Formats: sequence, structure tokens, C-alpha cells
Amino acid sequence: MRVLTRLLFVSLARPANLALRKSCFCSKPPSQPAWGSKKKNRSVKLNFPLSIMSDPKIEEVLAPFRASVKEQGDIVRSLKESGAPELDVKKAVAELKLRKKKLEDKELALAPAAATFDRAKMEDLLKRRFFYDQSFAIYGGITGQFDFGPMGCAFKTNVLNLWRKFFVLEEQMLEVDCSILTPEPVLKASGHVDRFADLMVKDLKSGECFRLDHLIKAHLEKVAADKKTSAETKAECEDIVVKLDGMTKDEMNGVLQKFNIKSPLTGNDLTEPIEFNLMFGTQIGPSGLIKGFLRPETAQGIFVNFKRLLEFNQGHLPFAAAQIGNSFRNEISPRSGLIRVREFTMAEIEHFCDPNNKSHPKFENVADTKMLFYSACCQMDGKPAEHHTIGDAVKTGLVANETLGYFMARIHLFLVKVGVDNAKLRFRQHMGNEMAHYACDCWDAECLTSYGWIECVGCADRSAYDLTQHTKATGVKLVAEKKLKEPVVVDVIEPIINQGVVGKTFKKDAKKIVEALNGLEPNDLQQLEETLGSSGEYELKVDGNSFKLTKGMVSIKKGQKTVHTAEVVPNVIEPSFGVGRVMYSVFEHNFRMREGDEQRTYFSLPPPVAPIKCSVLPLSNKPEFNVFVRKLSQELTSFDVSNRVDDSSGSIGRRYARTDEIAIPFGITIDFDSLKEPHSATLRDRDSMSQVRIPLDELPKVVSDLSFERINWAAVADKYPKFEQQDATKEA
Amino acid sequence: MRVLTRLLFVSLARPANLALRKSCFCSKPPSQPAWGSKKKNRSVKLNFPLSIMSDPKIEEVLAPFRASVKEQGDIVRSLKESGAPELDVKKAVAELKLRKKKLEDKELALAPAAATFDRAKMEDLLKRRFFYDQSFAIYGGITGQFDFGPMGCAFKTNVLNLWRKFFVLEEQMLEVDCSILTPEPVLKASGHVDRFADLMVKDLKSGECFRLDHLIKAHLEKVAADKKTSAETKAECEDIVVKLDGMTKDEMNGVLQKFNIKSPLTGNDLTEPIEFNLMFGTQIGPSGLIKGFLRPETAQGIFVNFKRLLEFNQGHLPFAAAQIGNSFRNEISPRSGLIRVREFTMAEIEHFCDPNNKSHPKFENVADTKMLFYSACCQMDGKPAEHHTIGDAVKTGLVANETLGYFMARIHLFLVKVGVDNAKLRFRQHMGNEMAHYACDCWDAECLTSYGWIECVGCADRSAYDLTQHTKATGVKLVAEKKLKEPVVVDVIEPIINQGVVGKTFKKDAKKIVEALNGLEPNDLQQLEETLGSSGEYELKVDGNSFKLTKGMVSIKKGQKTVHTAEVVPNVIEPSFGVGRVMYSVFEHNFRMREGDEQRTYFSLPPPVAPIKCSVLPLSNKPEFNVFVRKLSQELTSFDVSNRVDDSSGSIGRRYARTDEIAIPFGITIDFDSLKEPHSATLRDRDSMSQVRIPLDELPKVVSDLSFERINWAAVADKYPKFEQQDATKEA
Repeated sequence: MRVLTRLLFVSLARPANLALRKSCFCSKPPSQPAWGSKKKNRSVKLNFPLSIMSDPKIEEVLAPFRASVKEQGDIVRSLKESGAPELDVKKAVAELKLRKKKLEDKELALAPAAATFDRAKMEDLLKRRFFYDQSFAIYGGITGQFDFGPMGCAFKTNVLNLWRKFFVLEEQMLEVDCSILTPEPVLKASGHVDRFADLMVKDLKSGECFRLDHLIKAHLEKVAADKKTSAETKAECEDIVVKLDGMTKDEMNGVLQKFNIKSPLTGNDLTEPIEFNLMFGTQIGPSGLIKGFLRPETAQGIFVNFKRLLEFNQGHLPFAAAQIGNSFRNEISPRSGLIRVREFTMAEIEHFCDPNNKSHPKFENVADTKMLFYSACCQMDGKPAEHHTIGDAVKTGLVANETLGYFMARIHLFLVKVGVDNAKLRFRQHMGNEMAHYACDCWDAECLTSYGWIECVGCADRSAYDLTQHTKATGVKLVAEKKLKEPVVVDVIEPIINQGVVGKTFKKDAKKIVEALNGLEPNDLQQLEETLGSSGEYELKVDGNSFKLTKGMVSIKKGQKTVHTAEVVPNVIEPSFGVGRVMYSVFEHNFRMREGDEQRTYFSLPPPVAPIKCSVLPLSNKPEFNVFVRKLSQELTSFDVSNRVDDSSGSIGRRYARTDEIAIPFGITIDFDSLKEPHSATLRDRDSMSQVRIPLDELPKVVSDLSFERINWAAVADKYPKFEQQDATKEA
Repeated sequence: MRVLTRLLFVSLARPANLALRKSCFCSKPPSQPAWGSKKKNRSVKLNFPLSIMSDPKIEEVLAPFRASVKEQGDIVRSLKESGAPELDVKKAVAELKLRKKKLEDKELALAPAAATFDRAKMEDLLKRRFFYDQSFAIYGGITGQFDFGPMGCAFKTNVLNLWRKFFVLEEQMLEVDCSILTPEPVLKASGHVDRFADLMVKDLKSGECFRLDHLIKAHLEKVAADKKTSAETKAECEDIVVKLDGMTKDEMNGVLQKFNIKSPLTGNDLTEPIEFNLMFGTQIGPSGLIKGFLRPETAQGIFVNFKRLLEFNQGHLPFAAAQIGNSFRNEISPRSGLIRVREFTMAEIEHFCDPNNKSHPKFENVADTKMLFYSACCQMDGKPAEHHTIGDAVKTGLVANETLGYFMARIHLFLVKVGVDNAKLRFRQHMGNEMAHYACDCWDAECLTSYGWIECVGCADRSAYDLTQHTKATGVKLVAEKKLKEPVVVDVIEPIINQGVVGKTFKKDAKKIVEALNGLEPNDLQQLEETLGSSGEYELKVDGNSFKLTKGMVSIKKGQKTVHTAEVVPNVIEPSFGVGRVMYSVFEHNFRMREGDEQRTYFSLPPPVAPIKCSVLPLSNKPEFNVFVRKLSQELTSFDVSNRVDDSSGSIGRRYARTDEIAIPFGITIDFDSLKEPHSATLRDRDSMSQVRIPLDELPKVVSDLSFERINWAAVADKYPKFEQQDATKEA
């Protein structure tokens, strides 16, 4: 059994997403087939990120790759339509994915901008100025764990506070803060205990672990590349690599045996494949009897509190709950810096709504937001992503409903606000085979980075799955009462139990018999009535035991009643943010070098999320400057403007370069003219490096307005006189 | 061996605090003996919380209790001075603690205000309105874990944001965000692996666990209370209970055997005492080979990053780092709600400074802060706590240094700001036996609650302990360079190694020989020179092997050099906040009942930390009100004022009562007069229940100013006309 394909962040976020979906490639309502039947969307022609699409030469190069994807997409469609065997479909889908990947790699390779980004340079800056770095480095470090230093931490705090304001405050969500340590039954119900696993093998001697699919793929590719390998074997290897994604544990083990695969590091023998659950286990309490895990996502904390949250909302639907917090996944081989880690911060929203009404009252506010959609259709057809307004996307059925669309637009707006480059942001729709059987639609916000397109936010309509699972596990009904537009009359059938007789007859079993009777479904009650009527007796089975009921013990009452409300299991729309991934994308999208000086690198983070808003620099170490510097720093602080004084001896230019490195957007210099009345200082803009001269008493307010984007630099440059250059030589 | 006495939060926070302090009862410099030699402080007469001290009758009742403490305090002092055996001192200290406890219990019992607090009522409100509740309740819950609902979470967020502003922003601290999962060696070095444990025994059949000291105490008290017990045995029981705190594991086991103690629940036999480490263990990575723990405190993350932080601060001392985050302790028997839990949020500061200069540049700003000090002396003498200004406390030596004093004052100001009652807040000094051998001084901010005085914030001068430990474990020097006032000339002695000869002679061992030679202390080098000179040979021991060095391999160079800097291991002043405990104290201190209506309970949380700042209520469901309600809510949001619309059908009074319950400080009602021009609405103050009428266009700004304490209610009541009562009957 292949346990879990973990392609993406949101796929990771809920193992059940990927479970039980064997025969479910199309999760759309029948009117909107997902596998690429040509919908007529009012599409805006794609403006591809990095604008490579405008070049017809590039399109010419890409054309065969697109055709190859489309060819395979059509094969998948027709297999599906003809009801072909599952394995054939799987194999075709795996091949489709490979072809998609080749197309994407080619697209990215042809993008001219990609060449100018120097990841090593950026990582050097991030490490040198301690934005973040590997945890416990003095102890040798642990892979997949990172500590955020002062600048990384402040940036993260600002992103999270903005998130809180943008989502929780603005939408009046119910924010909660739930436990990280989670007892096993909760994660059993959610599916994580059974299915949140990767297959691995161990080196029998050294204990070194390898992810099984990575290992097989690497080995077979090596075999296939060997000149001595026969054409037949080569073909077999290629065939297996293509099939790998759909293989069971036993099939994979067969491949291990057949090709006699050993540890690539030591040549030692390997264990049988092991299902390695990615959750960190521990024991709660001293007895060692309560098994627990570190939560692999924050969402379950919201679901188990649903009843209390609904009550807090006075019983009304819809409402949204939110949570920011750390989650943990014991990756077999963490990599790619902040992108795949063992401990990470998530920000998740669970919007609970009436399953029959997914409209959103504020949808009109965002309907005109233009976004880049990479639909399942486009992916099947080898077509590029397309620009639409979210209003059109919902209207044409590309996006399943208004609430999902509303959140997608809000996610888009938020990401751009914190510094994601609009041109490197797309929403990719899950294809049928990536989505859970119960999900209606799922889109990932992906950012283009030097690692390719990485998923930063998932946005899924998860239907009633999670609440249903926890209800099954606990017997606690997680439902909402919905007021019916008009009262309806319904048939009622209920057992009338003679408690006295039942009690006397069955003694200690009486209680569970009464419970069982009250729990019978209408059909069973109907049958009970008939059997009792015809034979005078009825065999009731409770917990494997049989009890004989007679006419005196129970009878059936039928009637009708008028009901004004109906119980519904709310559906859930879930936007789920991987905070570290968003941060990483923002770092890449805002990494800059000064023209003509490759050593002067910096981050052009938007002021509201910049770790420190303003630097205060005395032009020289002249003591008279100090009083101005101190007073200004205090005043900035009183305006909530975080600031940093740099009174070291470097030149102003060098000190500015240092503040640029840590993304400080504004810099004030106290110079000789500051000492004269009316007192003033210079204010510098990080991105343009232009400067103006501003009276000291106006400065804190101006910097505060700039920092929180109540005004922009252009307005300031317009209002105050331009300043050219400090002249430290005046001191002489 | 008795592993660890865990009395208090900060004691918990660092096990090493309590280790290796056997013979160290006095940690003060010799001029300031801690064990109560009578210092002459300029003391202000104690104004005891709940003002019971003003009553001479109560003082009369307390007098014998005070005398009893003083008597025992003097015994401890004289034992200590005469160098009595350790066990005698321990026993005397344990008795002193008991007497102190009796005095404190009596003091609290006599306090009239204590009677009016109804904890059950408060807990009902906290649970009913989902401030917080047991985690995973639908699964039966887990003790010692809590989920914060919308109101608890918003309150917590506000407290933390205020903390960040008050400490991090105001003091320009370096905030970091480090990993929770911590590999074993780090916690081995910090002392947690070996010493962060409690003793327990297990029921041999059921596996139920009991904290050993609790179990013995309960059993012996029962025996002593039994009428059939002989006077001799009674005395023995009492003696053991007094000694318990200082007993070793074996001694306790002896008691178990002697009194044949069984499980109090089942009567089953018990295991031998087991040291139960309170950290949650897990494995990092798939191999199962890297042992890790969930951090028991956040501080270690700062210490292991010291080098990078110092570098970020351009090498300068002093600087402070801060961290907010979750920590975990696997309590044997969690209890007292939020006070002793398994998963909790801490906010810790590590202020690194020159060990020879603990002055603080901003101390003058806080010098006049008046606080309640419960010194080690007062505790020994049975005296009540005393009021002083922090300025006086540092001047007289009561508090060890300015930096420690500065942080104590800042902690005091912060706690009062977030809602701790000034009259129920004291700073209690650790007595010699509570403090680590290396600590200079340690004070706990304690809040008086229905559980007694509970420690909410610790503030300790931890000297150079932590950095030294991590240096020992890793070999990485965690030091700062200090510029000397004047350069000094020092003797230098160093080995001159002939690498060629050494390499040829020792081959693969050469490298470690060179390292060993370079690592020799001056004394060893001196001896090497002498031995080589006299015998021509020198035996060098490396890793247990001996190597014979001859004259041609190494010689000694002596000289002098002028140095301008010296290396220092910074000292650490550590304020450590238990966020849940602060929150709990604030809940208790702000729980109120309306006069004459015990059912109308509410929280009078200060506006800046209140979960929601303002409610917006339409007087009735008249449709014309809606547009005003919606617009107002949006405008409040744009002023960062979190708000909640309640358009349910209850009377205004009832709806106000509901908003009072969740601590909303301000309420706006849209009524019939709001519809008329000039539009206006009423604004109500939660605490006084008084109301004014304010023009709609001024309202958002006024509420924002009130919410963030830029103005107070008195000013608003002064400016706008008083409003008496809405009249819903006008609608008719």
C-alpha cells in the first residue's frame, strides 16, 4: 500500500485530503467536468510572470512541450471516460505530471529574470544579518529547524499582526489558541494516525533512512543511464519511474528486490519498506499510558471546539474561526531552507457555512480583483495560466462558489500587501486526483521562487468531512440548527418504552437496551413494529448480545410534527497559510542589488512588515548630536515606530548600506544643519535612495505615516525640499 | 538523592537554580548577609494588601505567628553561623517554611476582601463565555492543557502585544523566535536532562502515578490524626513531614517501607521511587537516533544564539534579547487551572551585561516607583512586606544592582498596566536556600489570588552560569570583548612548534599533538620548558596516550604584550513571565459583580487588553438602524478598534450584560434619535455604567482614544452630555 503522496503543503495539511479518492478524478458537479472539457471563460490573455509570454520565439520553443502535455491530458480524459482500469489511469496521470513538470521547467528556464537572482548571495545576507539560521548551530545544528533572529522575528511578527488585522479583525473571526500536544484519538479520527506517513527503508547496519520513492527513482535513473543496460531494462526502469507515484508498498518492495537496491551511501542491505508516520510522538503524563503527538496542523483544534465556537456565535452560521500557531512534521529528509521544515508556523481559517448557501455578503467588495488562475483544464491542456477577475471566475464556474472565491481574493490581496510580487503569484487548481473525494474545489496560492512554484497558501472547500469524523469518533453532534424558510410537517416514529417492565426483566442491561431502542433508525422501528405485531417478539441486538423484547415492553408511536429548524453539518472553507513559505517568497521577491554594485544587497520589504521602520544616524560622533538623536528615537517610539540608532563611526553611506541590508525603509540623519534653528534633519527612502529635509517636530509623524502606509514617499518628496548629500567635512 | 524541590515558577524555569547549592544559604556579598542581619532600610510602613494591617486587633492575632517565624529564623541563622551539620540546617529551614506558611494562611484568612471573591462563579463565567476551557473536551479532555477561546485568545494577544511594545520596542531588545524541539545535548548542558525531575511512585497493578512527597505527606498526616496512633509515632510522623523537603530518594524510600505505604486509591503495592523527568521526550528524524525534548523554557534558545546576537549588536554590551513562545512540562499531577499546566506560554528576557558594571542608564526614569518588597530578612523575621521606592531599595542594597532593580520596576509597571491590582502585588526575594549558588539575587513578582500568593514573573541575576555551561559543552567561546579603560601590559608565554619535525615523527597523531600544545595553560608551558631544558624530553598526554617530545620539536617563547581589550563572560539578568499565570491573576483581580445583582458578573479588564473594545447595538430590529450599525462598525475597524455587533432581540440591558461578561469596555447604542440630524448615538462605560450622547462622526475617534488610553472616561463624561436611558417603547 502506498501510504500518501505528499506533493504540496495543503496536501500535507490534511492526509484525508488524499485518502479514499481512488476512483474520483472529477470532483466537480456534473455540469462542470474538471478534466478539461472546454469551458468558455471570459479570459484575459495570460500575462505570464517575468513576461516571457510576449516573446513569440519562446512560444515556439514551448509549443512541442505544450502539445505533449495536451496529448497526454487527452489520453487521461478518454481513459477516464471509457472507464479504463484504475492502474492504467494512474500511470497515465503520472506521465501527465512528468510532462507538466518538463513544460514548467522549460518555461522557467526561458524566463530572463530568473538568471539575475543569486540565491547564494541572498542566503549569505539572511545568515550574516541573522534573519534566520539553523537552530542549535553551536551544537552542530539540526536539519529542518530554524531560529529567527531579531530581524526575521520582527518581520514574522509584523506579517502575523497584519494577518490578524486583515483577516481576524476585518472579518470579525473568532481566533483561538489551542494545545500543541494532542492525544491520539483526536488524530486517529482526523486520519493522521493511519495515513500521515511516508514509506522509507533503513540501512541495516548504519540505520541511515531513505525515502523509498526518492531512493528507487534515483537508482532506476542511474540504471537507465548506464550504457551497459539493455534497451529492454531501460524501458522497464522508465516505466517504473512513471508508475512509482501510484505503487503500493508491496509493489515498491518488489522493485527493491528485483533491482537488488542497496544503500547508496554504504552499499549495505536495506530493511523492508516501513511506513514512517510523520508526527512526533510523545507520552502525556507520567504513566506512559496516554499517547500523544505534536499537532501536524492547527486546524483540528478548531474542529474539536466547534460546539463552543458556534455557541459563542449565538448559534448562527456562517462564522469563521482562526488560529495562528506552530505545527510539527518529522520529515524524513528536510530541505530547501524554510520551505520544508520540521517545525513551522501556520495561520489557518475555518469558515463554517450552510452547505446549501455558499454565497458571501462581501464578495462584491473583491469581485474586480484580477488574479492569475492555473485551472485544472489549463494544466491538462498544456495551456498557460489565465488572468481573470475573481468575479468572472465564480460566475463562469471556474471557482466553485462565492465564499471560496472571496477568500482566494483576500489571500491574493494579503500576499501582495506583505510583499509577494504580483507577477510571481498564481492560483493553481488541484486536479481531480489531488483532491479528496469530499472536497468541492481546492486552489493553492503559489509563489514563483528559485525553487520553482511553491505552494504558500491552500484554499479548499472541505465540505462536512472534519466535523463528521469527530462526531463519529466522539458521539458528540457537531451540527448547527438552521431556521427553515417555511415550517415543514414531517413524519415521526418513536418507541414508547415501558421502563418498569424493561428494568425488572433485564436488570443491569436495561439501561443499554433503552438507549439502543432510542437510537434505532425509523426503518428499524418500522420493522420492530411489524415483527412484534406478527410474532409478539423482537430480538434486539446490543453489543453482540441478543435480548428478547415482548409487546408489553415497547410499542411504536407514529405521528407528524411541524418543524421550524433543520440540523445541518456545516461545510468548511479553509484558507491555510504556511507562514515560513510566505516569508521565504517575500525575501526572494524583495532581494535587490544596487545598480553597479553587486556587493550592496538589500531587501525592499514593504514598510508595514519591515522589521525596523527607521534608523537614526548622527552624521559624526560630535556630542551635540546626541541629544537630538536620543529625543528623536524616543519620539519615534512613542509613535510606535520601531527604530535603531547607529552611532558607530562608519561613513553615512556605509551605515545606510547596513540599514538597507536589514530592510529599514527610512533613515534620518542628524547633521550640522540640525543644530541650527529651525531644527531639521534629512529623511532618506531606502528604495529610491532619495532624501528630503524635514523640520524635526514634523518628522516622527511623517515617518509613522510612511511606515504604516498612510502616505507614500512620493507625497513626502513632493511636500519637502529635496536634499542632496551630507557633507561630513564641514566638521573640520 | 532528592532530585529537585520545585516550589515556584522560576525555580521551575531553571533546574540548575536549585542544584549544587547545598552549603550556600547566603548568596549575598559578605557585606549584605541574606539571612536577615538587620539592615537599616529607609522603609515605608507596610500598607498590606486588602489593608488588614491597619487593624490592631488583627495584628494582635498575628503576633504569635510572627514571633514563631522569627524564633525559627533565628535558629536557622545561628545554626548557619555555627557551621552546624547540613541536615540540621535543612530541617530547621523546612520548619521555618512551615511556620511562614501558617503565618501567611492566617494573614489571608483574616483579610476581609478574600471572602467576597467567588471562584466558582468566575470559573463559570470563564467557561460559559469560552475565555478558556480544557483542551479536547469532546474527547474527555486532558488535564493540564487548555484551549483559549476567542475572548481568552484576544486577551492573550493584547497582553503579548503590549509586552512587546513595553519591553522589546521601548528598550530596543533583540527579539528571537527559536525552535521548540531541542536536541538532548543542549538540555544536558543546561542541567535539565539530569535534574529537571520529580520523584514519583507507581501503583504496581494499575500504573497510576503519585508524586512521592505529596503521597508521604498525606499518608503521615492521616496516621498522625488517627486516635489509635501512639504519641511517639505521632511525633515521628510530624518530624518526617517537616524534614520531607530535604530528604534524599533513599530516605524517602525508607519512609515508604517503614510505614508500609500503599496506593491510596487501590491499596496495591507501589514501585520504588522513580525519578520522573518533567520534559516531554521525542525523536527527531526518522532514524530514532536523535533524542530530543520539547523545551521546558524558552531561555536556552537565546543562550545558544548568544554569539550571533552579540554580533548583531556590533559586539557591544549591554544588550537584551527576548522571546515569546510555548514551553512544555510533563507535570505528574497538574492542577489549579491555568497555574500549573503542561503547555504554557512564556515571555523571557535575557539582559547581557558586563559583570563589573550592572548600572542601568534608564534607572533614574523608574527610581521613584513604589513597590512592595518581601525581603529574605522579613521572611526570616516573620515581618510583613515593606513598601519602598525601587531607588531606595537599590541604594540600601536590598536589591543587588540597578539593572535588576530597573527590570523589577518595569515588571511592576507592566503588571499594573495589564490589570494586576497594585494592592495584590509584591516582590518576594528568594531566600538563600532557594537560590542557585551562582545567582546574586532573585525576586519573584507574586500576585495574591484565591490560591494564595502565586509567582507570575521571576527576575533573577543569573551571573555567567548559562553561557559558561554551553561553552563547556560545545567548546564555542561565548564571551564579549570589553574595551579596557587603559591598555595593560601582560606576560605572554607560547609554544613555538616545529611542525615539520612533529609531522614527520607522529604522522596522523601530529594534528592533535599540535592542538594539545596550543591548548596548554601557562603553568604547563612553564613546566614543559623546565622539563625539556633539564631532561631534553617531555611526555605529552593526549587522549590517554603519551607522546615523547624532544627539544627540536618545540620551544617556549616568553614576552609581553599590550592589550586594549579583555574577554568577559557576560552576566545575565533574567525577567521571566509566566503568561498564563499573569492572565489568571488579572482575571481574578478584575472579576466583578454588579451591586445588588450577584448574577450579573463581569470582567473590568483595562481597555488596552480587553478582547473586544466596543459593542454596537441597535436599540431594536428596526431596519433603518442597520445602515448606521454597519457603517459604524466599519469605521471602528478602520481605527483598529475591534468591535462586535449584537443585533439579537434581547433588551438593551440584557445585551449590555452580555457584553460586560466578555469585558467589552465601551458600548454604542443606535436609537431613534440616531436617525435624526445631527446623527448621534449613546456611548456607555462598562465600569461605571454611565452614558453620554456623542455625534456619530466623532464617535470612532473617541472610542479609539478611550480604547488605547489616550483619554479616559472622565474626560469624555466631562465633554459630552450625560444620557439617562434608552426608551424602546418609543417604537410603538
